[in-house]
Amino acid sequence: MIVVMKKNAGSDQVQHVVALIESMNLKSHVIVGTERTVVAAVGDDRKQAKASLESAPGVAEVVPILAPYKMASRELRPEPTQVVAGGLRVGGGHCGVIAGPCSVETEEQILSAARAVKAAGATALRGGAFKPRTSPYSFQGLKEVGLKLMAMARDETGLAVVTEVMSTEDVELVARYADVLQVGARNMQNYRLLEAVGKTDRAILLKRGPSATLEELLLAAEYILDAGNPRVMLCERGIRTFESHTRFTLPLATVTYLHEKTHLPVVIDPSHGTGHAWMVPDMAVAAVAIAADGIIVEVHPQPERALSDGYQSLTYDQFSQMMARCRRVAAAVGVEL
Amino acid sequence: MIVVMKKNAGSDQVQHVVALIESMNLKSHVIVGTERTVVAAVGDDRKQAKASLESAPGVAEVVPILAPYKMASRELRPEPTQVVAGGLRVGGGHCGVIAGPCSVETEEQILSAARAVKAAGATALRGGAFKPRTSPYSFQGLKEVGLKLMAMARDETGLAVVTEVMSTEDVELVARYADVLQVGARNMQNYRLLEAVGKTDRAILLKRGPSATLEELLLAAEYILDAGNPRVMLCERGIRTFESHTRFTLPLATVTYLHEKTHLPVVIDPSHGTGHAWMVPDMAVAAVAIAADGIIVEVHPQPERALSDGYQSLTYDQFSQMMARCRRVAAAVGVEL
Amino acid sequence: MIVVMKKNAGSDQVQHVVALIESMNLKSHVIVGTERTVVAAVGDDRKQAKASLESAPGVAEVVPILAPYKMASRELRPEPTQVVAGGLRVGGGHCGVIAGPCSVETEEQILSAARAVKAAGATALRGGAFKPRTSPYSFQGLKEVGLKLMAMARDETGLAVVTEVMSTEDVELVARYADVLQVGARNMQNYRLLEAVGKTDRAILLKRGPSATLEELLLAAEYILDAGNPRVMLCERGIRTFESHTRFTLPLATVTYLHEKTHLPVVIDPSHGTGHAWMVPDMAVAAVAIAADGIIVEVHPQPERALSDGYQSLTYDQFSQMMARCRRVAAAVGVEL
Amino acid sequence: MIVVMKKNAGSDQVQHVVALIESMNLKSHVIVGTERTVVAAVGDDRKQAKASLESAPGVAEVVPILAPYKMASRELRPEPTQVVAGGLRVGGGHCGVIAGPCSVETEEQILSAARAVKAAGATALRGGAFKPRTSPYSFQGLKEVGLKLMAMARDETGLAVVTEVMSTEDVELVARYADVLQVGARNMQNYRLLEAVGKTDRAILLKRGPSATLEELLLAAEYILDAGNPRVMLCERGIRTFESHTRFTLPLATVTYLHEKTHLPVVIDPSHGTGHAWMVPDMAVAAVAIAADGIIVEVHPQPERALSDGYQSLTYDQFSQMMARCRRVAAAVGVEL
Repeated sequence: MIVVMKKNAGSDQVQHVVALIESMNLKSHVIVGTERTVVAAVGDDRKQAKASLESAPGVAEVVPILAPYKMASRELRPEPTQVVAGGLRVGGGHCGVIAGPCSVETEEQILSAARAVKAAGATALRGGAFKPRTSPYSFQGLKEVGLKLMAMARDETGLAVVTEVMSTEDVELVARYADVLQVGARNMQNYRLLEAVGKTDRAILLKRGPSATLEELLLAAEYILDAGNPRVMLCERGIRTFESHTRFTLPLATVTYLHEKTHLPVVIDPSHGTGHAWMVPDMAVAAVAIAADGIIVEVHPQPERALSDGYQSLTYDQFSQMMARCRRVAAAVGVEL
Repeated sequence: MIVVMKKNAGSDQVQHVVALIESMNLKSHVIVGTERTVVAAVGDDRKQAKASLESAPGVAEVVPILAPYKMASRELRPEPTQVVAGGLRVGGGHCGVIAGPCSVETEEQILSAARAVKAAGATALRGGAFKPRTSPYSFQGLKEVGLKLMAMARDETGLAVVTEVMSTEDVELVARYADVLQVGARNMQNYRLLEAVGKTDRAILLKRGPSATLEELLLAAEYILDAGNPRVMLCERGIRTFESHTRFTLPLATVTYLHEKTHLPVVIDPSHGTGHAWMVPDMAVAAVAIAADGIIVEVHPQPERALSDGYQSLTYDQFSQMMARCRRVAAAVGVEL
Repeated sequence: MIVVMKKNAGSDQVQHVVALIESMNLKSHVIVGTERTVVAAVGDDRKQAKASLESAPGVAEVVPILAPYKMASRELRPEPTQVVAGGLRVGGGHCGVIAGPCSVETEEQILSAARAVKAAGATALRGGAFKPRTSPYSFQGLKEVGLKLMAMARDETGLAVVTEVMSTEDVELVARYADVLQVGARNMQNYRLLEAVGKTDRAILLKRGPSATLEELLLAAEYILDAGNPRVMLCERGIRTFESHTRFTLPLATVTYLHEKTHLPVVIDPSHGTGHAWMVPDMAVAAVAIAADGIIVEVHPQPERALSDGYQSLTYDQFSQMMARCRRVAAAVGVEL
Repeated sequence: MIVVMKKNAGSDQVQHVVALIESMNLKSHVIVGTERTVVAAVGDDRKQAKASLESAPGVAEVVPILAPYKMASRELRPEPTQVVAGGLRVGGGHCGVIAGPCSVETEEQILSAARAVKAAGATALRGGAFKPRTSPYSFQGLKEVGLKLMAMARDETGLAVVTEVMSTEDVELVARYADVLQVGARNMQNYRLLEAVGKTDRAILLKRGPSATLEELLLAAEYILDAGNPRVMLCERGIRTFESHTRFTLPLATVTYLHEKTHLPVVIDPSHGTGHAWMVPDMAVAAVAIAADGIIVEVHPQPERALSDGYQSLTYDQFSQMMARCRRVAAAVGVEL
């Protein structure tokens, strides 16, 4: 890290900073500039409460140099990680397609949706059994009944099951039925949950929180990796900005950036990323064009009757047409869909 | 809610919307405008998957009219709620002062901090025993040992104990020692945790998530109220914006807005809300000037040695001077501090 | 518009709102709900100071229904507009490619860049002669000398010239040399400038301000259209958000949204939209995949020596490889590049 | 600045960076860390296209150390600047109060408003004659007629006249009537306008753009100072964030930050900063409590009839009550109002 001193910092203040740095077992290096002095601290400073140096007298600013994550870093592991879970393959040249309703509602609904998305080319089925809902008055999910219906749909179609787990006490139950445990955006920094899913043998789909930086996302992944589970997929589902014509703003450059910084695969969620069914297909096509490792899309037999997220769910026809567009682009850019 | 039809929507599409609305047990009301038709739906639509109407053919937009929260609403309960927990009194003309270190580190540290903040005028002691840390490599807290040290500090000083609970399985343990359970910003939408703290008899300090709207904050409070716990304090601790000279942007208008919309008291956290110790006192003073119901401030015996958040912690002297400024302003505006 | 009354609004307050609405020559329509009364105002309310109704006693909120822009609206003019300027063709199935350096620096530089981007497939040359620079200490552009060099490059290569105009008093001068006048992001709401370029016979490239909503962008376009100039291209160049791994956040859903709402063509600027050369090609490819009407890209013979924006400029090789990728995707989706 | 090399950067790449830095007449300083090498560049790098170094091979990131502004900096001029314009005094312990309608509408309106705000304690009159309006269909202002009415109000009341200038060609005209030229938020980076007002002898009120960083605001001020005009007041009027319960988010920490970084006075605009009349008084009181150097507030004889911004305008009574609260707080904190 680089400690920038204030313009009028005295040499005693510089010496105090040097002493603090050395008390952290780092080496210090003083550079006297024309207007300011900076002190570089050399060594692995990840475990230090480094920013506390900002409190030292005469310090203007502390600039970190090293990325705070390690196991997720591409510097540590240069080849991309491919995550395989049942029929789903994400990364390493494969773009996995996860599709299905927001919530599991009935046996008929989930089986019908599973057949439809399978026919259109999906390799995994999404569906919520435990639903994190902004309002306590909204539909909260079918819980274990929903999980059983998902498993039934997998038995029939061969699709991998992707479903959310909201709480540490549900991890074991959900892991019994699911191929992929989804950690939702609202729980991206629920560290106990990250540790708990990190101890399972299921693949994890970790969604970016709507105000999380990508560094924070990678640190959340680091919790899971550090707990022993290497099968982590990152998911961009849109961030909160001032824009209101979309429910969230979907920054597709996340794919480009993460492909440079991490070996973990990156999945795009155009449904939450736009919040409007009619905008979803374009964003899915764009994701495929830049070799995202997967897409996750909400599809419902009858969106206007959906118990949740109907406004952003595609009909079967819309999904099928979207997949046809995706396939053409995937072929053009050399991605397996 | 108001359903706005597209310009070219046909009368069959309008009729279809009317039928959908009536199937939700709401009354419909069609208004034909010069350019567009809108359909008003009359009745309590909070339990409906209302936005799904957006998926109906010919619909341009659905505009909700009713606030989605009820128990937190000032319309339901016009008089402000005062929350009392041990020596702490928040709301109803009292501005509670919660102060202490980010993390409990040692017996000496927490007892010293407790005495110092008490002497300067605080009525509650903050201190983290379970710490949600962005990085798995950072200090994670002393856990139960930390809780015991907090309780010891309460025994000596009479300060109420405010500490964070991060997970449902810790609720019982933390409630044994704490007067106020803090739900942190990262857990504002951890609904299981909200339900769990809603079942305790402890007061709750619910922090706003950095990208949560105030409506989402009130809905999170609604989970706790709905679970049976009426002693909820809301806390503004800053939102994520493009600004980088502060760690978060602290919107003090939150106090004004929430005082209009809810009866629950509003606490300001200028430490997280700015992220720099030297900016904290001004924001505390401003909060008092507009009759915020409480402030929560990080104070550490030696910020540059703190194991977490040192850069935003005040020294004892700084806190004491800040309190002197707050008292002068409180007297001028008629608030009890 | 819809006027939502407060829960406890009296019937005299409702009558007052009705009277205000009728004084604006709109029709009113009162709907009494179970919890609140709303008053719909029917008619073209675009010229009214409508939001002032919020000041009337008992009013909780005013919700506009009609889009505030007219001439830019697809409802008025359903077929997409194609803008042609010299060799550049933007919209109507053609994706125009505008490329070149941030600033015109020397004759050698601009001629070399023109030849290189032409060879790689561009149809227009960008280059700044008048430069809006955040700092008064930065290079401010070659002004008329730069314009002459751009025109020289056009004479040799046939590329259309796209260059920024910063001030009303330069409009005539810049229009003498340029095929397309660019209104920069910082000037998107410089209404005098919008009116001035609206009176020229040059095509206009109007960049979105980094915190402008799309409605504000369309209203800015409306100023130009209203002044008599129909050849307006809209340009998305990224918005300001909390993300810092890119200089701006590029929301590609802008293309999808604007294609639905307006007949004007939409150009994507991946250079400013990411701020890092290595992220530019992916965003250009994604833009082509969703049928953006054009892309505008910074290319420099030697980015590390550029007088401005070197960090986001492609080398000739990088641009040429990017164009090859774009061509493959364009062919797959049926766009002419 | 600090140039951070990539982990795998070769020594030839480091040498190339050193050579580039020295070609800019800066000294270089190489520090080899355990994981990365960084190169510090020592000297005044403000006039260099420094960030272009990012394009050099092997470079991961370039971190600036020096603030890019100079004349606005408190390091250059430690004592706060007080700006005096007619009866208005802003800074140096005085909190100036600027109040009046958004737009000048009629002689009766502006004279009535001037008398009312004077009686309540304002020392300057605001009022728009040239109005930047988002929509071309909105009221655009009375132009010179409006300026004359403002001057008439000054003659009668002694209030200083504060009014916006939107374009370089109006500067001379507006300067003939006004004591303070306001540069609006939309024009904060209209550099030609900044230069033009910098050449007048009028005081300048420079409003922060809704997505401008404070560094960009100070650089905009630098344009004015650099053109020869030292009487610059900075104005915080709210930033664009995801919040929608206020029209903009008002970050009051701006006062604290700018008081540390610049000698220029800071004015708060709670009217635009909240966008709702009922929220304005609290934000004005908070601004006074932290010793902001001025406030600028919209006041209208009849807000529901205002031709612009009625929803955020106070009535005379509301303004007068707000001023009473401000005076009590000002007395408590030792500010002259």
